[in-house]
Amino acid sequence: MIKVAVVGASGYAGQELIRLLYQHPNVDIKVITSRSNINERYDSMYGNYIKRSNLTFEVNDVDKICKDVDIIFLALPHGVASNIVTKDIISKAKIIDLGADFRISDLSIYENWYNTKHGNETLLKEDSIYGLCELNRENIGKYKLIANPGCYTTCSILSLAPIMDKSFIDKKSLIIDAKSGVTGAGRSLDISTHFTECNESIKAYKVASHRHTPEIEEQLSVIAGEDIHLIFTPHLVPMNRGILATCYIRLTEDIHIDDIYNIYREFYKDDYFVRLLNKGINPETKWVKGSNYCDIGINLDSRTNTLIVVGAIDNLIKGAAGQAVQNMNILFGLDETTGLEDIAIFPV
Amino acid sequence: MIKVAVVGASGYAGQELIRLLYQHPNVDIKVITSRSNINERYDSMYGNYIKRSNLTFEVNDVDKICKDVDIIFLALPHGVASNIVTKDIISKAKIIDLGADFRISDLSIYENWYNTKHGNETLLKEDSIYGLCELNRENIGKYKLIANPGCYTTCSILSLAPIMDKSFIDKKSLIIDAKSGVTGAGRSLDISTHFTECNESIKAYKVASHRHTPEIEEQLSVIAGEDIHLIFTPHLVPMNRGILATCYIRLTEDIHIDDIYNIYREFYKDDYFVRLLNKGINPETKWVKGSNYCDIGINLDSRTNTLIVVGAIDNLIKGAAGQAVQNMNILFGLDETTGLEDIAIFPV
Amino acid sequence: MIKVAVVGASGYAGQELIRLLYQHPNVDIKVITSRSNINERYDSMYGNYIKRSNLTFEVNDVDKICKDVDIIFLALPHGVASNIVTKDIISKAKIIDLGADFRISDLSIYENWYNTKHGNETLLKEDSIYGLCELNRENIGKYKLIANPGCYTTCSILSLAPIMDKSFIDKKSLIIDAKSGVTGAGRSLDISTHFTECNESIKAYKVASHRHTPEIEEQLSVIAGEDIHLIFTPHLVPMNRGILATCYIRLTEDIHIDDIYNIYREFYKDDYFVRLLNKGINPETKWVKGSNYCDIGINLDSRTNTLIVVGAIDNLIKGAAGQAVQNMNILFGLDETTGLEDIAIFPV
Amino acid sequence: MIKVAVVGASGYAGQELIRLLYQHPNVDIKVITSRSNINERYDSMYGNYIKRSNLTFEVNDVDKICKDVDIIFLALPHGVASNIVTKDIISKAKIIDLGADFRISDLSIYENWYNTKHGNETLLKEDSIYGLCELNRENIGKYKLIANPGCYTTCSILSLAPIMDKSFIDKKSLIIDAKSGVTGAGRSLDISTHFTECNESIKAYKVASHRHTPEIEEQLSVIAGEDIHLIFTPHLVPMNRGILATCYIRLTEDIHIDDIYNIYREFYKDDYFVRLLNKGINPETKWVKGSNYCDIGINLDSRTNTLIVVGAIDNLIKGAAGQAVQNMNILFGLDETTGLEDIAIFPV
Repeated sequence: MIKVAVVGASGYAGQELIRLLYQHPNVDIKVITSRSNINERYDSMYGNYIKRSNLTFEVNDVDKICKDVDIIFLALPHGVASNIVTKDIISKAKIIDLGADFRISDLSIYENWYNTKHGNETLLKEDSIYGLCELNRENIGKYKLIANPGCYTTCSILSLAPIMDKSFIDKKSLIIDAKSGVTGAGRSLDISTHFTECNESIKAYKVASHRHTPEIEEQLSVIAGEDIHLIFTPHLVPMNRGILATCYIRLTEDIHIDDIYNIYREFYKDDYFVRLLNKGINPETKWVKGSNYCDIGINLDSRTNTLIVVGAIDNLIKGAAGQAVQNMNILFGLDETTGLEDIAIFPV
Repeated sequence: MIKVAVVGASGYAGQELIRLLYQHPNVDIKVITSRSNINERYDSMYGNYIKRSNLTFEVNDVDKICKDVDIIFLALPHGVASNIVTKDIISKAKIIDLGADFRISDLSIYENWYNTKHGNETLLKEDSIYGLCELNRENIGKYKLIANPGCYTTCSILSLAPIMDKSFIDKKSLIIDAKSGVTGAGRSLDISTHFTECNESIKAYKVASHRHTPEIEEQLSVIAGEDIHLIFTPHLVPMNRGILATCYIRLTEDIHIDDIYNIYREFYKDDYFVRLLNKGINPETKWVKGSNYCDIGINLDSRTNTLIVVGAIDNLIKGAAGQAVQNMNILFGLDETTGLEDIAIFPV
Repeated sequence: MIKVAVVGASGYAGQELIRLLYQHPNVDIKVITSRSNINERYDSMYGNYIKRSNLTFEVNDVDKICKDVDIIFLALPHGVASNIVTKDIISKAKIIDLGADFRISDLSIYENWYNTKHGNETLLKEDSIYGLCELNRENIGKYKLIANPGCYTTCSILSLAPIMDKSFIDKKSLIIDAKSGVTGAGRSLDISTHFTECNESIKAYKVASHRHTPEIEEQLSVIAGEDIHLIFTPHLVPMNRGILATCYIRLTEDIHIDDIYNIYREFYKDDYFVRLLNKGINPETKWVKGSNYCDIGINLDSRTNTLIVVGAIDNLIKGAAGQAVQNMNILFGLDETTGLEDIAIFPV
Repeated sequence: MIKVAVVGASGYAGQELIRLLYQHPNVDIKVITSRSNINERYDSMYGNYIKRSNLTFEVNDVDKICKDVDIIFLALPHGVASNIVTKDIISKAKIIDLGADFRISDLSIYENWYNTKHGNETLLKEDSIYGLCELNRENIGKYKLIANPGCYTTCSILSLAPIMDKSFIDKKSLIIDAKSGVTGAGRSLDISTHFTECNESIKAYKVASHRHTPEIEEQLSVIAGEDIHLIFTPHLVPMNRGILATCYIRLTEDIHIDDIYNIYREFYKDDYFVRLLNKGINPETKWVKGSNYCDIGINLDSRTNTLIVVGAIDNLIKGAAGQAVQNMNILFGLDETTGLEDIAIFPV
C-alpha cells in the first residue's frame, strides 16, 4: 500500500482527493493536515465521511510527515508550497502539488502573474515537472515533484494540444472562453460566492488577467514550438462543478473537419481519459461530472474558417484531485486508471 | 459473475442502476431494454457511458430474457410488472422490481390508491417480499421476487421504524413532511418539471394523496402491531437529487432523548447503511448524495413533547438503484455492501 | 412626499426596501445608512441601482436623522434597535423596525429566546405595535413604532389566523413545517450559505429552537384566546427567495372543507394581499415572487381528520420590505397597496 | 388608453409582455390569444395573475382582432406571423412582432437559415422596420410593422454597435460567445430543458449554426458599411433568466481604452436603457434581471490587442417583452421609458 499524506485537506480539492484516495485499492491515508482545524475530525467538517473515516486534522509539518509516507499531496494557496518543500523532503517522499508554485517554469512569468517571489527556484528547475498526464506521461516518473495542472488549464490544453503544432492554424488567433462552476472558487468565504450573490447569474471575471493564462500559454508554446499568446476569459456559472472551455482557432488553410478529427484521434489514441465525441456532438459538463474524463467536441465554422473546439471536465477531478491521483499512479507504476474508473454520476 | 438484465433502463432509476452495476465486481450486464429506444446505443442517450458501455437497448421480452440471466431488474411504470412477471419467469431468474406493483400486500389498498387492477395476486401473496433490507434482510433470500421500496418510503420508514412499537409514542400522531429533488419525478417530460417551471420555487404536491402513503403505513403497521394511519406530504425542491423526511411523533410520556438514541442505536447496530448522527446534528441531503446511506437526526421538542426525526437519502440510490443492488447482494449471498461503498460526492 | 430614511440599507431586506421605495409614488429617500460602508455609493454595492440612485451610505445617527425625515425604517440585527430608538426619536419620526426587538410583547420570552437584554421596555409596552397589517390594520395608525413581523412569522400566522379561535381545532396539535430560500439567511458570509455548501441540498435547521417560534405563538395565542405552543421547523431550500409554510392542524370534529374555505374567505375578505387559492390548488413560491401577496391553499386529510394549510410568500417582500411599505402606507393614510402592486415576475 | 392585443400569450415572452402591459399606465389589454388554450383563464396557467387578471384566451383571429385594438403584439413561432399579417391588418392596427419573420431584410438569408418560405415579402420590404430602439429610434415611428429583435441579437448588437464603423477594428475577427438562461428556450417541453437534464450543467449548442447569427450580422453590416461575418456561439446556463455576451474584436491599431469608452459614451449618450459600466467593472446578469437595461463592460487585452466587450440583458425584457413595449412607446409618442422603469430585482 502507498502511504499517503494530504496537506491542506480542508479545501474542496483536498476533500475530493481524500474521497478518491479512499476508493483507491493501493492507498493508505496516513495523515491529513490543515492550518486552522487541528485536532478536528474530518467527518465533522465533511459529513460524507461519517462512519467512513476516523481521520483527524494534524499540523502541517511536512518535514516530519515526509518520513512516514511515500507521497505527499499539497493542496495549498499559491506561494506556500515553494516555501516548505525542500530537496530533503522530496528525497524522502514524492510530492504532488495541486497548487500553482511549480506549474510555470519561467520564473519571471510566475512572479509577475502571481505577484510574489518564488520560494525555491532550484526545485522548480531541477526536480519538478508539469503533471498533465496526457502530455508528459513518459517523463513524470522521473521526477519527485509533480506540479498538478490547474483546472481551466487542463481543460484548455487538452482541447488545443493536438493542433498546436499544425501549420494550418493561425497561432496568434487563439481565444479560450471558459466557464466554471463555483467549486472552482474554493471553500473560502467571499461575497462573490455567497449563494444569493452568484446563484441565477453569470458573469465574466478576471478578464484578460486570470493566472491560468500563462500556464496555458507555456504548455501550448512548447507544443507549438513558438511563443503563444492567447486570450483567456473565465466565467462563473451558477452550478457546483464542471468546466467548459470554448476554444476558437482561426485556420489559415481550408481543412476538412475529418482531417481535424483524425489529428485528434491519433493524438489521444492511448488516452483513456480523453473522449473525442462524435461529429455534431458537443460536451456537456453533466456527462463528465464525478469522473476523470475530458470530453472534446470539434466544430468547423466554414463561414469564417474557424475551428471551435469545446472541452469539458470535472474541475475537481480531472481538473484537480483526479489528475493528482493519475499522477500518483504513474509515479508508482500503477495502471493510470486505478481508482479513477468512476462513470460520471447523473443527474447530480 | 451474476448475469443481469435491466428492463426499463432508460429512466433515471434504471440509469443509476446501470452505473452501480458497472462498478459492481460480481456483475455482468447482459441485457438492457426499453419500450421506445430499441437498438439505440445506451451512450447516445446517456453521454456518461461513452467509451464505457457498448450496451444497446433491446426489446422488453422478459420471457426470453429470463433464460439468459440470473436476475432481472424491472424499472417500469406501475401496473406493468405485475402483468409480465410469471411463476415461470421467476423460476428461471430472480426479479427485483423497482416499481410499485409488489410493494403493498393488501391488494385492495394497492388497487384503490393506484386506481388499477393488480395483474398477479398469486405472485404477490406467495412469491414476493418487501425489500427494505434493514427490516427484512433475514427473509429476502427466501424469495424470488423482491419489491424494491419507493424512495420517500425508504427514507420515511427508516426514520420511524425503531420507535414504532414503543408504548410511549402516540401512534395516531404521525406526520411526515417530505422534500424531494426533481429526479424523483423521473425523466418523462412534464410542465411541472420543465426547468423554468420548478427551478427557484418550492411547492407541496399530492397533499394527502401521494401513493407512497399506504406503503409507509403498511410497513409501519407491521412493526407497530396495529393499523397506522399517518399524514404524508411531499414537496418538490429545486435540486436534482435527495430526499429529506421531517417526521413528527407526539410522545405520551416523558422520555429522555438519550433513551431514544439508545433505541435507534440498538435497532440499527448491524446496519452499515444507516448513520445515526450525533445529538444536535441533523441530516443534509448533500452528505448522502451519491451514496447508499440513510442519515438520521433525532430531536426532542420538550416544549411540546414531540419527537422530530429527520431522515435523508439519495433518492436514486438508497431510494431506488442502490437498494436494488443491496437486495441483489442479499439474494446472491454477497456482502451487502458490495459495489455500494461509494462515499457521497461533494460538492456536486 | 414622505421623507424616508433607511437605517441598515446594506442587507437584503434593506435593499429590497430601497427598491420598493424608489417605485413608490409618494416617497423621497433622504438618507441611507450602514455600519461599515460609510461614504460608499449604493450602486457600487448593488449594481441594479446604477444610473438610478445617487445615494451614498451615511453614518447610523438616528438622533440626527429623525429631524430630517418623516419615517425611519430600521433593518438591523436584533438587539440594536431597542438600544437606539428613544421616545424623543419617535416624537420626531415614525419608526418601522424590520428587526425583532419590538415584535414580542412578553419581555421575558424575548430575552430568553434571543439571549439578550431588551433595551427599552417602555417603548415596547407603550409605543409599539405588531405590524402584521392583516391582523392589526385598525390600530397600526395609532402607534409610532411598528414592529414589522418576521418572514416565517408572516407566512405562518396568515396561514393559521382564521381558524385559531375555532372550537373544532385541537389547539395543542399545531405543526408548522416551513421552507425558506437562502435570502432568509441574509448577506453576511457564513459557510452554511456559501454557494457550494447549500446549493443542491436541503436541511432542517434550528429544529425546535428557531426564534420565530415565540413570535408566531404570541400572535396566534391572542386570536385563540389561550396559550398556544406549537412546533416550528425551518428548512433551508436551495433557491434565492420564497417561503412555504406547511401547517398541520388536527380537527376535533368532522368539518366539511367548504366550511373551512368560508371561514378563510370571510376572514380575508378585505385583504388585497391574501389570495385564497381554489380548492385543489396549493401555493408555489414562484407565483408570489416579486409581489406582496400571501397565497394560501387549504387541504383536508379526511383519513386523519387533519387540516393541511399551505402558505407562500416572498420572504423579502411580504416577509420584510413589502410589509414595511404596507405599514408605512397605513401610517400615512395612503391606500395600503400603493407602490406594492407588482405582479409576481416569472420565471425568475 | 392604447388598446392592445397579445397574440400568443401563453409563452414566456408573451407572459412577460402581459406583466409589463398591466403595469403600463397607458395600456388597456383587450384580447389575449393562444392556439391551444382557448377559453382557459390566464391565471389558471400563470398563477401570478390570480386576483389580478380576468383575461381568458381567445382564438388567434388577427383579422377580427385588428378592428378592436390599436396595436397587436405577436409572440409566435417563426413562419407564422408572415402568413397571417396583411396590408389590411396593419392599416387597422400597428403590429409589433416578437418573432423572427420580419427581422432579416435579405429574404434569401432568412429562408436559408430558417429553412422555410417567407410568407409576405411585400410587407417585409415596404412596411417593416427592425425595432432595435437604440439604433432605429428615429424611424420606427414611420412604420406599422415592427420586427422586435431577438434576445441574443439585442445583447450582441448593443455590445458591438458603437465600434462597428471604426477603422481600428479587424472586421473579420468578431467572435460572440453568448450565454443564456433557460427561459430563452421557451416553455415548450423538451428533454434538453427538463430540469434534471440542464440543471447543474453547461453546454454550447447550435455551434456555428444559430439563427440569430444572420440577424446580428445584418445589423452590424449596416453600421460597418460592409458585409460582416462573425462567429456566434450560444451556451445554455442553468438559470432562469439573463443573457451574457462576451464579444472579442481584434484591433488593428494601438488604441487607448479611454478612447473606446469615449466612443461608447458618445454613442449611447441619449440611451436610458444602456448602462456603460465603469472601467474594470463587467456586467453580471443579476444586475439587469427584471429590468430593461443593457449593461456593457469594456476591456482591452493589451497583450493581444483585443477588445473584449461584455454585454448583459434580461432576455425576456430588453431581449423580448421590454423592448416590445419600448417600441410601442415610440410608436405612440410616449416617453420611451414609460412602464419600463423597474429597477432590477435582487436577489431573485
